[in-house]
Amino acid sequence: MAEGFSSQGFYDDLVKNRLIIPTSVPGVFGRGTVFEDVLHRFDALLSRAAAPDGAEVMRFPPTLDRKVFEKSEYLDSFPQLAGSVFSFTGTEADHIQLREAVHAGRPWAQWQTMTDVVLTPAACYPVYPSFTGTISETGHLVDIQNWVFRHEPSPEPTRMQSFRMREFVRIGTAEVVVAWRDMWHQRGLDLLHSLGLPATSDVAADPFFGRLGRMLVGNQLEQKLKFEGLVPVISKEQPTAICSFNYHQDHFGQLFGLKLPKGGLAQTACVAFGLERCVMALFKTHGMVPSSWPEGVRSRLWV
Amino acid sequence: MAEGFSSQGFYDDLVKNRLIIPTSVPGVFGRGTVFEDVLHRFDALLSRAAAPDGAEVMRFPPTLDRKVFEKSEYLDSFPQLAGSVFSFTGTEADHIQLREAVHAGRPWAQWQTMTDVVLTPAACYPVYPSFTGTISETGHLVDIQNWVFRHEPSPEPTRMQSFRMREFVRIGTAEVVVAWRDMWHQRGLDLLHSLGLPATSDVAADPFFGRLGRMLVGNQLEQKLKFEGLVPVISKEQPTAICSFNYHQDHFGQLFGLKLPKGGLAQTACVAFGLERCVMALFKTHGMVPSSWPEGVRSRLWV
Repeated sequence: MAEGFSSQGFYDDLVKNRLIIPTSVPGVFGRGTVFEDVLHRFDALLSRAAAPDGAEVMRFPPTLDRKVFEKSEYLDSFPQLAGSVFSFTGTEADHIQLREAVHAGRPWAQWQTMTDVVLTPAACYPVYPSFTGTISETGHLVDIQNWVFRHEPSPEPTRMQSFRMREFVRIGTAEVVVAWRDMWHQRGLDLLHSLGLPATSDVAADPFFGRLGRMLVGNQLEQKLKFEGLVPVISKEQPTAICSFNYHQDHFGQLFGLKLPKGGLAQTACVAFGLERCVMALFKTHGMVPSSWPEGVRSRLWV
Repeated sequence: MAEGFSSQGFYDDLVKNRLIIPTSVPGVFGRGTVFEDVLHRFDALLSRAAAPDGAEVMRFPPTLDRKVFEKSEYLDSFPQLAGSVFSFTGTEADHIQLREAVHAGRPWAQWQTMTDVVLTPAACYPVYPSFTGTISETGHLVDIQNWVFRHEPSPEPTRMQSFRMREFVRIGTAEVVVAWRDMWHQRGLDLLHSLGLPATSDVAADPFFGRLGRMLVGNQLEQKLKFEGLVPVISKEQPTAICSFNYHQDHFGQLFGLKLPKGGLAQTACVAFGLERCVMALFKTHGMVPSSWPEGVRSRLWV
């Protein structure tokens, strides 16, 4: 492992050890045998930590119902990160033109039209519309793991366009969801520490777009709606957020009409682990070869 | 379980037993706790069957390098199935217009431009460009499992827009890859039979687009390039293809410049299991409640 911190150095180490398999697109790469093995073991450790809670498992494809996405207000806040899916719906004559354009290396966007799906921007988005109307007395707890998309091409290895989020979502009263979020905040940090990761946590904000967005950042920080778990991966001074603990207030309850049994809107919270980032934090902290990781770390993952 | 075969009846059974979680888009749905559990167990059974071969594990995101996709000639053959990814790259002024359109329920495609990625159309596509130039003496064997996208919205539950393919890819000489494909053809059928599935196999063709495409179908059938494993899921007369065994000749070797050590183009073959379809075949054959499946089937999956 390279000592010190460098984005390019860490990327090169990952490639050299065949932990990742590069493509020509920044932020899009394959995961190698060892990387995937560690990722599944970390994911299983999260499952064990969460097991006492008895969450309902749901898994969603990387494509999301466009109507749900439009309703979610994601495009108000993060238009630059969203990905929408287009397809060819033309005739055979159109197809001849499309083929010619592709083979000649010319743009072919004009033969693509918007479909009914977009790329899932955050793992929890498909969960809310799956509960409609009045929620149950004790609320809901859901366990998800989805591929999400963020259009932010970058050579920085932790800034991926496609990656997996393991999330848990709590739906209920304000008291219940905030207490649950705070419980996971501590549980998450404890879990990272148990793997020898020098994790800290801090209040944080989402990357809202534009000038209006900068005002929303202030609001989010002030109300402590988001905390992030941070580990140095490509910089010591600016550690990488590898997980987050989020309180949405009644944002999703309002958008998707989730009501409490005793009246009023349901509130929601979610905790999210960026699985690839967690794995990269392990490789940065303990080295590129898991067989030489500290015994205490190995025994937590290789049960 | 409903006796007999019906697309809508099977879909309703899946929903009623919370095996799938519907959205408003045909062919896009969540997978419930029990469905996911069976899927992972089936996937693990495939891993055990393939273990003696020692394939290199690679996992790719659901997004594929657009340059690789353009080179693959997929748009020549299946333009109607492909999905391309678009994003917003405009100014704050553009964003105001985008927001207004979305909130007013008007089309917003005009504020989306084509990105450098498309949705992965087949799990093996990212594998070929990861090997460049002359391949090794014994060739290559790769183990993949990716989400793939097919734009073919349908209420028929086995016809999904987003689903997972578990694939193995063999790269080498014609003799090696054909023998390997044929070995898997038998191994795959044996594996399905060991789970009590009434699987048959037949020569098959891909859904090529248009009039020209219909000629390609004839060619593919005649040369026996593709075999499918078939199980009745929504129709007894037209069983569903749940896996396929494919010989590509030098198609990908030519496109991606894969050369044999002794000269000439490398040839390739792949075997692909549609994981959701395999799981649906199990639910259709044995019923909606895995705890009442035959003991011989359970012991194969719940090791």
